[in-house]
Amino acid sequence: MASKAQVLYDFTAEPGNNELSVREGETLTVTNQSIGGGWIEVQNSKGEVGLVPEDYIEIGKPGGGGGPPALDLSFFDSQPAAATSTTTHSQASNGNDPWAAFSTNANAGFSTNANAGFSNNWAAQPQGTETGRTSTHDPWGSAAPPHPQAYQGPGADDDEWDDEWDDKSTGGYGESEGGEGGAINRGGATGTSMKIKFPSFSKSGPELYLLSKPAPKGKDRLLIYMGEVGPIWSYPEAALDCVVADPKKGTKMYGLKSYIEYQVSPNTTNRPVNHRYKHFDWLYERLLDKFGSAVPIPSLPDKQVTGRFEEEFIKMRMERLQGWMTRMCRHPVIATSEVFQLFLSYKDEKDWKMGKRKAEKDEAVGAMIFSTIDPEGLPDLDPIDVEHKCEQFSRFTRAMDDGVKDLLTVGQEHWKRCTGPLPKEYQRIGKAFQNLSSVFNSSGYEGEATLTDALTQAGKTYEDIALMVAEQPKKDLHYLMETNNEYKGLLGCFPDTIGVHKSAIEKVKEGDKLVATSKITPGDKITMAKRASTMSYALQAEMNHFHSNRIYDYNRVMRLYLEEQVKFYETIAEKLKHAHSQFTAM
Amino acid sequence: MASKAQVLYDFTAEPGNNELSVREGETLTVTNQSIGGGWIEVQNSKGEVGLVPEDYIEIGKPGGGGGPPALDLSFFDSQPAAATSTTTHSQASNGNDPWAAFSTNANAGFSTNANAGFSNNWAAQPQGTETGRTSTHDPWGSAAPPHPQAYQGPGADDDEWDDEWDDKSTGGYGESEGGEGGAINRGGATGTSMKIKFPSFSKSGPELYLLSKPAPKGKDRLLIYMGEVGPIWSYPEAALDCVVADPKKGTKMYGLKSYIEYQVSPNTTNRPVNHRYKHFDWLYERLLDKFGSAVPIPSLPDKQVTGRFEEEFIKMRMERLQGWMTRMCRHPVIATSEVFQLFLSYKDEKDWKMGKRKAEKDEAVGAMIFSTIDPEGLPDLDPIDVEHKCEQFSRFTRAMDDGVKDLLTVGQEHWKRCTGPLPKEYQRIGKAFQNLSSVFNSSGYEGEATLTDALTQAGKTYEDIALMVAEQPKKDLHYLMETNNEYKGLLGCFPDTIGVHKSAIEKVKEGDKLVATSKITPGDKITMAKRASTMSYALQAEMNHFHSNRIYDYNRVMRLYLEEQVKFYETIAEKLKHAHSQFTAM
Repeated sequence: MASKAQVLYDFTAEPGNNELSVREGETLTVTNQSIGGGWIEVQNSKGEVGLVPEDYIEIGKPGGGGGPPALDLSFFDSQPAAATSTTTHSQASNGNDPWAAFSTNANAGFSTNANAGFSNNWAAQPQGTETGRTSTHDPWGSAAPPHPQAYQGPGADDDEWDDEWDDKSTGGYGESEGGEGGAINRGGATGTSMKIKFPSFSKSGPELYLLSKPAPKGKDRLLIYMGEVGPIWSYPEAALDCVVADPKKGTKMYGLKSYIEYQVSPNTTNRPVNHRYKHFDWLYERLLDKFGSAVPIPSLPDKQVTGRFEEEFIKMRMERLQGWMTRMCRHPVIATSEVFQLFLSYKDEKDWKMGKRKAEKDEAVGAMIFSTIDPEGLPDLDPIDVEHKCEQFSRFTRAMDDGVKDLLTVGQEHWKRCTGPLPKEYQRIGKAFQNLSSVFNSSGYEGEATLTDALTQAGKTYEDIALMVAEQPKKDLHYLMETNNEYKGLLGCFPDTIGVHKSAIEKVKEGDKLVATSKITPGDKITMAKRASTMSYALQAEMNHFHSNRIYDYNRVMRLYLEEQVKFYETIAEKLKHAHSQFTAM
Repeated sequence: MASKAQVLYDFTAEPGNNELSVREGETLTVTNQSIGGGWIEVQNSKGEVGLVPEDYIEIGKPGGGGGPPALDLSFFDSQPAAATSTTTHSQASNGNDPWAAFSTNANAGFSTNANAGFSNNWAAQPQGTETGRTSTHDPWGSAAPPHPQAYQGPGADDDEWDDEWDDKSTGGYGESEGGEGGAINRGGATGTSMKIKFPSFSKSGPELYLLSKPAPKGKDRLLIYMGEVGPIWSYPEAALDCVVADPKKGTKMYGLKSYIEYQVSPNTTNRPVNHRYKHFDWLYERLLDKFGSAVPIPSLPDKQVTGRFEEEFIKMRMERLQGWMTRMCRHPVIATSEVFQLFLSYKDEKDWKMGKRKAEKDEAVGAMIFSTIDPEGLPDLDPIDVEHKCEQFSRFTRAMDDGVKDLLTVGQEHWKRCTGPLPKEYQRIGKAFQNLSSVFNSSGYEGEATLTDALTQAGKTYEDIALMVAEQPKKDLHYLMETNNEYKGLLGCFPDTIGVHKSAIEKVKEGDKLVATSKITPGDKITMAKRASTMSYALQAEMNHFHSNRIYDYNRVMRLYLEEQVKFYETIAEKLKHAHSQFTAM
């Protein structure tokens, strides 16, 4: 039991999970090797005991860590050290940590001061580093690498929900070290504690669908209508919504590991169901597999959340899960899907398990989703129109991505100033006034009191203002940042969604050649054009959905931001007015 | 005529004076060597023609510059390069450039970022450097060195008022390089273009007065009464005041050199008299000689004023001359003095010249001023009381000096932030909103206009706020800084004034010993104690004058500051409220 272990990679404990932060090169004593789930209990030289991922350490005696050898994933375009750790959907990674590697894509003219201290409470702790690029591709040069996770492999029993693989997190509004560095990715993990996600929809591509048989017109059809703004999805009559609340802590492994369970209450049943973060992740995977080719599925806020204190971490994660769920609820295709409904309103454990199995066996995934889409009664679009629309959307989403990143950079800078130097300065002004007041007080001159009292009051007012300035970003800038952050994640999914369409358009363009070389029949060519038209209707419907949500979201967040800003400045003016009144009128 | 000259020291031209900025090592062509007044007309390699002080250049052929050899002033505790350039009353130098060398005396805990860019318009140009210490002593370690001047020597005809010796200036709220550096002082000037001022009152010391015969009780007596707050000066029934206005440019030397004349209108005659800066300087010298032992005479704002543009320079100098004159007018001893009355209301040129000659021949200067002070009917003070009072004032003025410098440091930092990074940030926020607005505008989605218009409006509002933030310090912080700056200068005079009292106290303490060694008679000893008592009444009256003015000034400036701050924040809130109203309510 008392065997020694050497730490291979830095590991930062997540608060409240009985984990232990360790540094590369540190020597540990193994106190419990049979924890399971990829974790080992160790004691450091200070006597602190906690869990570390088994892949982060090398145990002195043979047979300690181990596991199957690293998979050869060298066909992924990733850095050597990171290649064997984790890969994920490129779509997912686009949104994973929109803050990381940001400066590399920021508009010129905005210098980001990456090394300045940055201390908003819940985002100040840059846990781990995210410098290795592990995404399969980098559509706009801004993909953030996913963080290595020590979660279960795909072969694990899917009813075993007890392992805490809620990921270490980075980001928030903290500093990221960009994607250019050469630092070693935190995970050198192999084997059991790794999960490889293949980008299923892009692997299959649109070919399968383009030449597939027409689907029977069943109840699963996703209808597209012509609305005022163009093609739109069929929206349910009652808007779906849900509340993510009441995070509760549970423990497992005899209290060694803990997890958080959230209550999710949909407005349809008003009956809460419990879900852990990894259930959300499971849902995300299902939605991505099934709808990702037609609907950009923003990744979960896992990598974006961190906190110096557990409560802040939980609060922030909950807030972001709520944001994610709200967005999913608002989407007509997602909201009405069986898997999403299951997640929101499963009746009991049995119902949940059966639903899960069914969802995982669903074969209408990837590009095949288009076979269920029905632009009912709408005329087929000309391939040139299809291409034109696709390019227009591509330009727009790219431009918006730039704009959003601009705003995030500026907001981050402003956050830094508002929580750092600015309040310090107001505090100093306040102290200088109070200091002068106490000097005046020592004059021995009669009739001094009115001035010194007023000066002290003025000084305290500036100290109050200092606090207000430091607290304000949480009240307004925070929401502006969150919304833009969400949009950054969402926009990061568009290149893949649009890519599916582009590759379909390419196939259709090759139609004549394929017919000439007898690869397809003339009838196939017509079918392909028809299918591409359907895909274009889907993309247009999706863009219109995106636009209407965007207008709603930005309108809302700007109102909130400006409202809070007005209150802020009015309160300052009010405080100063009071301070002013304390001085003798002349 | 076409002889070449080598530049010995950097020289920065004062705007509007036909001067030419030159750099050390530069080669010039001498175009007119017979300008006079210590100036030479030169042409640089770019063909620009202008005046430079003759002592700043070395003319190629023999007999070019020259003048009498440097005086040996090595008994002054100053740096070699500066020692031969200029010295001045230590009292004057305390106030000369209260900003320079400031950081060396700033309270700990306030880091001054001396190299950061600082760009308020009228103070941004650090002309020359002020690193050599030329003051005779440095009472609180904060004396700023005077700047070398190219003005007339004391032997020049005092009716020849036409030479422009208004000094190059530095300071304002600009950066100073502190007094610790070893850079060469700008002036290596010798001979004619130098004026040596000896601190006459501290040279004479209080001994002369302590044992002098009692002065006849004439009309020149300066009475001290017992007021509510203690001993007070006899204040005139009507408060004197004056307005410094209407700066007008004149030229001399056939238009080669120009000068500024200000109109000074006292409320007694309401008749304006014209004065050039050097007339103010003459007045300052007279007041310092005559009253400096009893009344701290703040130095003129010469070294504190600078401007990138001539109008700003003139405006700022006028503002500070006004402040100085107002302070002098408010002082009962100064206001009622013959020399001050002459300055404010001379009838004609002849009256002025006669008055000048008389004032310059006045022998009741230095410590002898106390012989005209009469604490009428007040009991003699015990020497222990005298010492106690003196120490109390010394402590207070020193503490206030620290407090004022604190506030100035903080204010300077704040000024920098408000005119530099902060508005830039608001501008960026504004641009980011507008940028997003124009991206949204390109969406092709219908019903976009309301949001994009509102976003553009919000963006412009933040650009407006940026301008407001940058302009605000001129509206409020400026006056807070000016007032504290004035007090810094004034407080810098106290160590000398208090020093005279301390040395009188020392003499009185030695009384018994002096009697025992027959240096003085027992009667002399009693006289000395009586005289010290008079001096103490004078100091107390002066302190009470100082306190009442201080309370008035700080009350006034704080009200002004806070009033403007309230307006500022209210205007921002108003603007944001309007921006908010442009977004669609939901």
